[in-house]
Amino acid sequence: MLDPLDDSYYMKKALQEAELAYEKNEVPIGAIIVVADRIIARAHNLTELLNDVTAHAEMQAITAAANFLGGKYLKECTLYVTLEPCQMCAGALYWSQIKKVVYGAVDERRGFTAMGTKLHPKTEIIGGVMEKECGELLSRFFIEKRNLN
Amino acid sequence: MLDPLDDSYYMKKALQEAELAYEKNEVPIGAIIVVADRIIARAHNLTELLNDVTAHAEMQAITAAANFLGGKYLKECTLYVTLEPCQMCAGALYWSQIKKVVYGAVDERRGFTAMGTKLHPKTEIIGGVMEKECGELLSRFFIEKRNLN
Repeated sequence: MLDPLDDSYYMKKALQEAELAYEKNEVPIGAIIVVADRIIARAHNLTELLNDVTAHAEMQAITAAANFLGGKYLKECTLYVTLEPCQMCAGALYWSQIKKVVYGAVDERRGFTAMGTKLHPKTEIIGGVMEKECGELLSRFFIEKRNLN
Repeated sequence: MLDPLDDSYYMKKALQEAELAYEKNEVPIGAIIVVADRIIARAHNLTELLNDVTAHAEMQAITAAANFLGGKYLKECTLYVTLEPCQMCAGALYWSQIKKVVYGAVDERRGFTAMGTKLHPKTEIIGGVMEKECGELLSRFFIEKRNLN
């Protein structure tokens, strides 16, 4: 039997967060954190609204999940994020010792893979889940931005 | 004539922040951000108190400085931090396009240099300012921790 709560199921939830960012005219990236089939944090990019380069979806989700759990390590958690994390977010994930990171679209320019950022050796990494849908939302945002300028 | 507001002057201010962290039983790291000879942000590591791996001194200082300036870029700012930034903090500094980063003690294991994290190409980097004093506070903290366990 197919698992209804597979990586695509949770990536859709992260994509819903990305759509909330899109509606706010933020670069549309969303993230959720899951532990034992339960979503404990939802966040989307708010760098413009908060005037803060650190307000990436992943950073907010890490803080919210740790707050929920009452501890700073996310050793049993999985992060779903619609775009491959950057150096900063991968660095935060490294400190959190998160169990698993699942991302959608690849960021060939500023993603942690291209930048050579290290995640924790215990962290499992899966890329390209719903890559097309996650990437399309980002493309739509940047095309609209360009047409406005 | 010697400039009274040189890098050592500001590193002493960052070290005062590190001492506040020490008093709270946090890993003693402090940071300040300066623009036009004015300190616009002061912060110290609060990862234990806030149960949050993202609560490094630099991250809080970046957020506070952007809040003060009303914009997310720190192109005219200098960060002083008592320990070499990690991947996460260097990644945040990259996004901020900060003008200059001055750090005290070198972190040979988890510093951004050893980890290969990229800062913004426009960012000037100076390491080893008051390295001895900054490092001694950290050593004192970890020796005391070890003796307690």
